[in-house]
Amino acid sequence: MENIELNMDERIDEIASSGVKIIQSREVFSFSIDAILLARFPRLPKRGKIVDLCAGNGAVGLFASSKTNAQIIELEIQERLADMATRSIELNGLTDRMSVINDNLNRALDHLHTSSADLIFCNPPYFKVDSDESHLNESKHYTLARHELTTNLDEIFSVSKKLLKTNGHIAMVHRPERFLEIVDKMRANNLQPKWIQFVYPKANQPANILLIDAIKDGKEGGEIFLPPLIVHNDDGTYTDEIDEIYYGKH
Amino acid sequence: MENIELNMDERIDEIASSGVKIIQSREVFSFSIDAILLARFPRLPKRGKIVDLCAGNGAVGLFASSKTNAQIIELEIQERLADMATRSIELNGLTDRMSVINDNLNRALDHLHTSSADLIFCNPPYFKVDSDESHLNESKHYTLARHELTTNLDEIFSVSKKLLKTNGHIAMVHRPERFLEIVDKMRANNLQPKWIQFVYPKANQPANILLIDAIKDGKEGGEIFLPPLIVHNDDGTYTDEIDEIYYGKH
Repeated sequence: MENIELNMDERIDEIASSGVKIIQSREVFSFSIDAILLARFPRLPKRGKIVDLCAGNGAVGLFASSKTNAQIIELEIQERLADMATRSIELNGLTDRMSVINDNLNRALDHLHTSSADLIFCNPPYFKVDSDESHLNESKHYTLARHELTTNLDEIFSVSKKLLKTNGHIAMVHRPERFLEIVDKMRANNLQPKWIQFVYPKANQPANILLIDAIKDGKEGGEIFLPPLIVHNDDGTYTDEIDEIYYGKH
Repeated sequence: MENIELNMDERIDEIASSGVKIIQSREVFSFSIDAILLARFPRLPKRGKIVDLCAGNGAVGLFASSKTNAQIIELEIQERLADMATRSIELNGLTDRMSVINDNLNRALDHLHTSSADLIFCNPPYFKVDSDESHLNESKHYTLARHELTTNLDEIFSVSKKLLKTNGHIAMVHRPERFLEIVDKMRANNLQPKWIQFVYPKANQPANILLIDAIKDGKEGGEIFLPPLIVHNDDGTYTDEIDEIYYGKH
């Protein structure tokens, strides 16, 4: 392991199943189960280029790094988070094939070539700016990560369409209550939803996480709804499936 | 029970949980799990009017009849099936509040008032006419029940929009691979998808049945993906949930 400096507020978390270490801080938005589920959701290209939009502290790309030899580029607008991602990449010895761009998503094409990405990951802000979800008590770091202040779905899909190769994929995690808006805006940008998976907190509760994989210039129809992912057993423990995603086969 | 004549090829099936008896025949399309799941899917109006489009032998309306006092109208194009539905209604002593219209769905407004229905059920033909699913070896009865020969989604939703009251519901069972087409065509007719439930043959297999409930003139957004329904355990037996839907609480 390289010698990485941690700020006072920072800690290092490790997800056993991926083997990667991630610098986290309570002062900024930490990765959640959403990032872990997104990283294992799409089929990963063996090589080529993966771009993680709205990368935060780089969790999704870092998790995925153990399962592909592709180049992984993390794009994050917040300097504080981009810096943490950069040091996590160093911490895991991945500087040869992972890097961070600290810029607004709408300038992605200033840094990356058109039609160059095989896969885009995106764990974006979930809430509309006019949403009821209050963010008055949040720090700026949390607000930017949770609310569509600096980007929104239209922009994400418009940029993704330009970044992706034909038949390249975008894999997104979001909230089920915005599903129809997401599929409409994807298709308005020639991104055809193909694989969809819903995540349920418990077997008898409505879905609270949506995973969706769309193909650039893909054919209409034939969408596939993958087996449901249930997070908790009735007694509140993780289901075997989630346990395996976190801790690997046992 | 009234004295109902059965044809040579006919039998009477009973679904324990609903208590209703249904005349079936191997010569025509029998109800399947799809009809049973559709009947228990939407919230039923206590009274008012329910219309079952593409009613077949009347299974959906008959199942629902034990849980509502609403008037239930079965609309079916095939004379043979409409006749079976009529006799099943007599068999269950439901002629005071169930009836059958034997006509093409596109003439529904010749029989029913505009904006009169509280709920529409629809278990339509699943396959496009140009679909790969061959129907060369099927009887005419099966072909009409399975393929969009006499009706299609555009027509079903266009008629439904006219039949439904504002805030009335349409509950449909269909195939997940046509989900996006269904939500597009619903919305083109002011039918806003609100509750969606996927049915999976086993916990580790993709969904093979879609249940969807839309509200006429409903507000956009906030769609709810209900808990997954798993039909079979790994050993092939019915799950407790399906067992209960078929046989009632035990």
